[in-house]
Amino acid sequence: MRMYDIIMKKRNGGELTGEEIGFFVDGYTKGEIPDYQVSALMMAVYFRKMTERETLALTMAMAHSGDMLDLSGIDGIKVDKHSTGGVGDKTSLVLTPMAAACGIPVAKMSGRGLGHTGGTIDKLESFPGFSTDLTTEQFIRNVNRIGIAIMGQTADLAPADKKLYALRDVTATVDNLSLIASSIMSKKLAAGADAIVLDVKTGSGAFMKEEADARALAEEMVRLGNDAGRTTVAVISDMDQPLGYAVGNALEVKEAIETLKGNGPEDLVELCMALGSQMLIAGGKAADTEEATGKLQAVIRDGSALRKLAEFVEAQGGDPGAVYDPGLLPKAPVIHEVKSPAEGYISHIACDEVGICSLLLGGGRETKDSTIDLSVGIVLCKKVGAYVKRGDTLAVIHADHESKLAEVEKRYLNACAITSAEPARAPFIREIIGRQ
Amino acid sequence: MRMYDIIMKKRNGGELTGEEIGFFVDGYTKGEIPDYQVSALMMAVYFRKMTERETLALTMAMAHSGDMLDLSGIDGIKVDKHSTGGVGDKTSLVLTPMAAACGIPVAKMSGRGLGHTGGTIDKLESFPGFSTDLTTEQFIRNVNRIGIAIMGQTADLAPADKKLYALRDVTATVDNLSLIASSIMSKKLAAGADAIVLDVKTGSGAFMKEEADARALAEEMVRLGNDAGRTTVAVISDMDQPLGYAVGNALEVKEAIETLKGNGPEDLVELCMALGSQMLIAGGKAADTEEATGKLQAVIRDGSALRKLAEFVEAQGGDPGAVYDPGLLPKAPVIHEVKSPAEGYISHIACDEVGICSLLLGGGRETKDSTIDLSVGIVLCKKVGAYVKRGDTLAVIHADHESKLAEVEKRYLNACAITSAEPARAPFIREIIGRQ
Repeated sequence: MRMYDIIMKKRNGGELTGEEIGFFVDGYTKGEIPDYQVSALMMAVYFRKMTERETLALTMAMAHSGDMLDLSGIDGIKVDKHSTGGVGDKTSLVLTPMAAACGIPVAKMSGRGLGHTGGTIDKLESFPGFSTDLTTEQFIRNVNRIGIAIMGQTADLAPADKKLYALRDVTATVDNLSLIASSIMSKKLAAGADAIVLDVKTGSGAFMKEEADARALAEEMVRLGNDAGRTTVAVISDMDQPLGYAVGNALEVKEAIETLKGNGPEDLVELCMALGSQMLIAGGKAADTEEATGKLQAVIRDGSALRKLAEFVEAQGGDPGAVYDPGLLPKAPVIHEVKSPAEGYISHIACDEVGICSLLLGGGRETKDSTIDLSVGIVLCKKVGAYVKRGDTLAVIHADHESKLAEVEKRYLNACAITSAEPARAPFIREIIGRQ
Repeated sequence: MRMYDIIMKKRNGGELTGEEIGFFVDGYTKGEIPDYQVSALMMAVYFRKMTERETLALTMAMAHSGDMLDLSGIDGIKVDKHSTGGVGDKTSLVLTPMAAACGIPVAKMSGRGLGHTGGTIDKLESFPGFSTDLTTEQFIRNVNRIGIAIMGQTADLAPADKKLYALRDVTATVDNLSLIASSIMSKKLAAGADAIVLDVKTGSGAFMKEEADARALAEEMVRLGNDAGRTTVAVISDMDQPLGYAVGNALEVKEAIETLKGNGPEDLVELCMALGSQMLIAGGKAADTEEATGKLQAVIRDGSALRKLAEFVEAQGGDPGAVYDPGLLPKAPVIHEVKSPAEGYISHIACDEVGICSLLLGGGRETKDSTIDLSVGIVLCKKVGAYVKRGDTLAVIHADHESKLAEVEKRYLNACAITSAEPARAPFIREIIGRQ
């Protein structure tokens, strides 16, 4: 078998066999097949696409390219949750303690933020001392003991995907549904959960700007997960404006804590209920959405979800006191209110631009090696649909220095459109794919 | 400017500017842009194609990526001739002395054979002592003194093309008209001639199997040449069976010498007359085809073309005696006749297969580093359209050892189709593009 023939076959519109896909994934992971042949193949895939069969073979080959995490040491049905990434997306911080409090064992791999989107691990590190640097043994032990553990993705998990994604990222071959779906799902399969609940975002702050693309990606991932023998569900939700109000690591942690206390913003609560219901149903802890919703509301009401967060933070070396006293979280020295320059309805907030505001303040990563300031960010006061008067506070900037305010304020104001007509609103949850 | 954006633009169907093409060619030549980005771009070009403007910009950028040969030291209109490659193609050996004898200064860069096609330099090295290893000064001096010189392509000529072709060759991105045309023409432009006559082959032994593809390539190259300010003409001719009868280095030299003596095979003579006429017209030595044909016939008849070959061979260190006594050329020790297994018309000879017969005998190169045996090859006795009886000799194999005969004989017989009906024949010269 030769890589040249595989490129030629795909270029000419042929369907690659599982053997051919395995050959290329394996050879590339081992460094036996050079980057320049793989990038040519990826561009051919971009134009010719992949069939369902090819996509499944690619996903499985990448999942098996490194370690397959063995979670059999954890009792119960392990349910993983994955978000395609967004701005102000603190869902995991709220949802995982809720699910764990309902008896779902949560064994989750998370990532760090890059570009305009944030990452769960960065946010968790707002708790002084918190670390995701666990061994697999510690990880499994923690889940068995308190029902929840989160670790960073290890290098040994789906190394083929890691290498392939880095190559696609510099060769303009990212935007292909099969490649995106197989990249996400290979990691999820290798991470070992029995069931996977996917949080697929759509809108200006999401990877998939168009709802039709988000739906197609969700369907593809659900099919891949189910074909690989894992119960898989996807919730498609709005990311056309930030989720909740806070954008920035410690600021989001604070909002997550408020949500666990029952004071969460409407959209975030709705999303946690939708995803949480699917997790509880997949994990056998509820028969239907109604029962699941009741249980999820109960763990908020009785404080057990908040206590679960404190237990989890403590188990991973963090200060649980910060859960009850958010004043212990990192705080930015400079606070600045952004005032509305006009009167009218907020008709649109360019969501990726708000993410970039946080990035410019030092709260995000421009490259993988950037260091970030956990305290900074921006807290929205008015979201889409709100009516504002001239001089009303639109948002509050939390910065490390006054020198950054002017640029961020300008950028935020440019991201907000104010119109005289009340904007039409799409439902926040668009669809649930693969619903139980 | 970023290579990523250039790949993305082409992937999305945009037209690259001259500046963008210059950026990528220059960066790639200098090693600043990695192979994997260039191969992704080449695959995007394969699918999106290039406009005439892009193709011209690519050709010019590659032509200027290294030295541009300065032939201004040579008097008269310098006419170069280039073949897209074939089997038994000894045209340059016959045509260049003919043109030189007619007063056209021939300053030609040639290549070596690879795969099933041969190369002029290998053939010329059949003359004991002959070398194409000339300095530019020697090259120009020889053309001025005797009217003809042939040198190997130096590394400094169109290095971008060399690097790009090697990459395309291993990433299944060779078959694109713009890329093929720009590759050929960038080298021709850098080689400095005032006029270029292209010998474009079509058929089973050619790079372009289909006549429509050969025509499209010829048209593209003629346009590129003319746009770059060089008079350019292309002759499209048949390569569906070997040219002439001999295939193999010294065997072809012998046939070329016979042709210069007036005893050449019909197709080879017809091709030399067609290409030679265009060279004479482009070089201002004849007003039309009739006058040109007359002059070309005269230099055969009076022996001046044959003498020109001898002068040329001597000027480059070879033994001119071999021109008059071909017995001095390398000779294979084993001669074997291939007999016809059936009676009927030869309806088809798979031309590339005949080239592979020569390759298997040791007369060609499987890789760039193969060493070749100049003496071996195969001489056809019957070509397409001939009527043969069972036991008639179809071809004669010249080998270094008897052990190779069985495989080559089998392969040759498989390459020959014998039918009871007389085959239809297409004209040998299909078209002349850009005719003066």
